Amino acid sequence: MKKPEFYMKKAIKQAYKAESIGEVPIGAVIVLDGKVIASAYNKRNSSHDATSHAEILAIKKACKKLGDWRLDGAEMYVTLEPCPMCAGAIINARIKKVYFGAYEKKSGAVMSNYRILFSGSLNHKADAEGGILEKECSSILKKFFSEKR
Amino acid sequence: MKKPEFYMKKAIKQAYKAESIGEVPIGAVIVLDGKVIASAYNKRNSSHDATSHAEILAIKKACKKLGDWRLDGAEMYVTLEPCPMCAGAIINARIKKVYFGAYEKKSGAVMSNYRILFSGSLNHKADAEGGILEKECSSILKKFFSEKR
Repeated sequence: MKKPEFYMKKAIKQAYKAESIGEVPIGAVIVLDGKVIASAYNKRNSSHDATSHAEILAIKKACKKLGDWRLDGAEMYVTLEPCPMCAGAIINARIKKVYFGAYEKKSGAVMSNYRILFSGSLNHKADAEGGILEKECSSILKKFFSEKR
Repeated sequence: MKKPEFYMKKAIKQAYKAESIGEVPIGAVIVLDGKVIASAYNKRNSSHDATSHAEILAIKKACKKLGDWRLDGAEMYVTLEPCPMCAGAIINARIKKVYFGAYEKKSGAVMSNYRILFSGSLNHKADAEGGILEKECSSILKKFFSEKR
């Protein structure tokens, strides 16, 4: 079994793809039985679509690949702590565990501001682990925003 | 200015479209300056996509129509209280106000279980009003689930 860092590096690669087209650099991959089944990066600006976060795009790709809205047993690796929309989508897709890199104090909906994955009242619960390659994940974002200013 | 009930009836029409294809009957419309700019209904099963809730599909259509991920000033009318994913998408799309029909005690993320639209820590806040044509909105759902059993 590969370590979380192995897959997080793939998510970071996706984040760099976002950066290369001027998007806020956030990337995600979905893994099932050790195999990456979907990769995506944030495209909110270029797609003119408020829902085009890396996590949502990755979930849509994985659902399409499996032909099922249920991603039972799948894991997500994402460079930034998911927002409420994405945490909700993770629950709706029945993802088993989420590994994220940087913490997002304001809009983070896994551990920081909301704890949506752990709610007992939703139809599903997911595990989570934060801080995977945290420095690298957050430095991509910091660099992007400092160059924007 | 038209009353919320006027637009909720259009959302209910969408819910009936979902029902007609065997989907959980939930419908949504997005209104800008009094005009419906997007209509959608739940397609989770038929699209094999965990993100295909009525609200997400309506937001995607509205973004496409306006060519912008920001739906500033827009209102959403939806037959059921949005879940965390959809409430998060409403915030991400900067929708101004959400009118919903039936309350959803377990997964409702506007007033019932979470209050995501009113959070001061997210980048945007939205207004909300629940219980618009509540009886009709919830009876469509009750009928659907009782026939399923």
